[in-house]
Amino acid sequence: MCPIQGSPVSPRNIRLLLEYDGTDFAGWQLQAARRTVEREVRRAVFAVTGEQPTLYAAGRTDAGAHAEGQVANFHYGGRLSARRLTSALNAHLPPDVAVLRADDAPQGFHARYSARRRRYRYRYLDREARPALDRARCWHVRGQLDVLAMAQAATALIGRHDWTTFCSASEPPGGRVRTVDAAQVERRGRFVELDIVGEGFLRGMVRSVAGGLAEVGFGRRQPGWLAAVLAAHDRRLAPKTAPAAGLTLVEVIYEPPEESYSSSS
Amino acid sequence: MCPIQGSPVSPRNIRLLLEYDGTDFAGWQLQAARRTVEREVRRAVFAVTGEQPTLYAAGRTDAGAHAEGQVANFHYGGRLSARRLTSALNAHLPPDVAVLRADDAPQGFHARYSARRRRYRYRYLDREARPALDRARCWHVRGQLDVLAMAQAATALIGRHDWTTFCSASEPPGGRVRTVDAAQVERRGRFVELDIVGEGFLRGMVRSVAGGLAEVGFGRRQPGWLAAVLAAHDRRLAPKTAPAAGLTLVEVIYEPPEESYSSSS
Repeated sequence: MCPIQGSPVSPRNIRLLLEYDGTDFAGWQLQAARRTVEREVRRAVFAVTGEQPTLYAAGRTDAGAHAEGQVANFHYGGRLSARRLTSALNAHLPPDVAVLRADDAPQGFHARYSARRRRYRYRYLDREARPALDRARCWHVRGQLDVLAMAQAATALIGRHDWTTFCSASEPPGGRVRTVDAAQVERRGRFVELDIVGEGFLRGMVRSVAGGLAEVGFGRRQPGWLAAVLAAHDRRLAPKTAPAAGLTLVEVIYEPPEESYSSSS
Repeated sequence: MCPIQGSPVSPRNIRLLLEYDGTDFAGWQLQAARRTVEREVRRAVFAVTGEQPTLYAAGRTDAGAHAEGQVANFHYGGRLSARRLTSALNAHLPPDVAVLRADDAPQGFHARYSARRRRYRYRYLDREARPALDRARCWHVRGQLDVLAMAQAATALIGRHDWTTFCSASEPPGGRVRTVDAAQVERRGRFVELDIVGEGFLRGMVRSVAGGLAEVGFGRRQPGWLAAVLAAHDRRLAPKTAPAAGLTLVEVIYEPPEESYSSSS
């Protein structure tokens, strides 16, 4: 019995790997009358398939934040191949969003709930002159950052913590515990970059951490200060939030057999 | 005798280190009714100093090409410090041009004629999906480039050659000999990059070389083909010119005591 000829079949579960330049978006998530990435992807899916999908995304990136490896999924009743979907969606998406890959995922796959790790990058440009190149891809700070002090401070982020100090007040007080697996700060070319990997990040968390690391980088705080404010669980001690332009969702990591679902896999 | 009080003095020779995003510019050089980098810099100098300067630049970059380290100079009769000039010019320049540094150069300094070496980078993005990030900063080519073959081909560029095959027909036939000191091709993150250093580059030369290297990278030509067409001195053999968006003027190198005049020095 061929399932295409009449027997009821589940819709396919299509997984998308997405890149976007967040500069001109009000973030990922649908909002009435705002240009969001989710709205553009839904429009493109509708244009290609005639279906109005519900999209699930691994990370709800902020307005102005970017993605090299956002993952989303939706259910699809049609028969276009994943390869055809990729090229057709890219033809309908605006220049600041691209589908790097589309494929058929297992029925149980959920871009958000199946994700085991997210990797974000936060990028600083520390020099006197404002940037002309990459000006929507970094946080420009005047003066030179002490990268070693920042790297030392960042080691305190690793582990399972209550992130009350570093997350939005909108996060429920009982749900602010998350594990961070890695947090590195390095100078790379013209930029200083924070790479942070964890099971999940609360609203505002990476940008608040990035703001705190800048305080250490400028020598206004000692490296141990970051650990102390983290342990205090007190939002009144929160550092200034760093601008969204410096933030990029780099990669989302799934359980085997999916493993890392990135453009390099 | 204080030269400020009345005795005739030469105007100062101000040197600028400039960064720009070439996307929305018709190149460096002044053109009637076109938005060029030179026009914006002249406007800013006039706004700050009240003088209409003649600008001399190390490289006349093409429309759409970028600069991390363009160098220009102009003569200035006023007394603003170099530091004040830097911040005042940046306040008057549009967001896609920035002065990284201004300083007083020796009277004999000429951004173009004193330059001993220029370093350019050409950046390819070799993947199926079009870019959303950095889409005005690379040449998107479909399929994977053979970086080793490109690197091998690039070694033929090093040395003193007649570049007739790779330059614009507008270059005078008697003046097409230039020395290239280094030409490397490497994969860096998501991109493949050509770094090329030489005393000077003819109009169209780097982009034509970049187009030729892509032919080799796709396996349509053997690495030795690049050396053969270079030796033929025949523009009819010229490869397709690569798009300007992939091209960046990285650095201009001067004789001692100026040495490299870049943001890292």
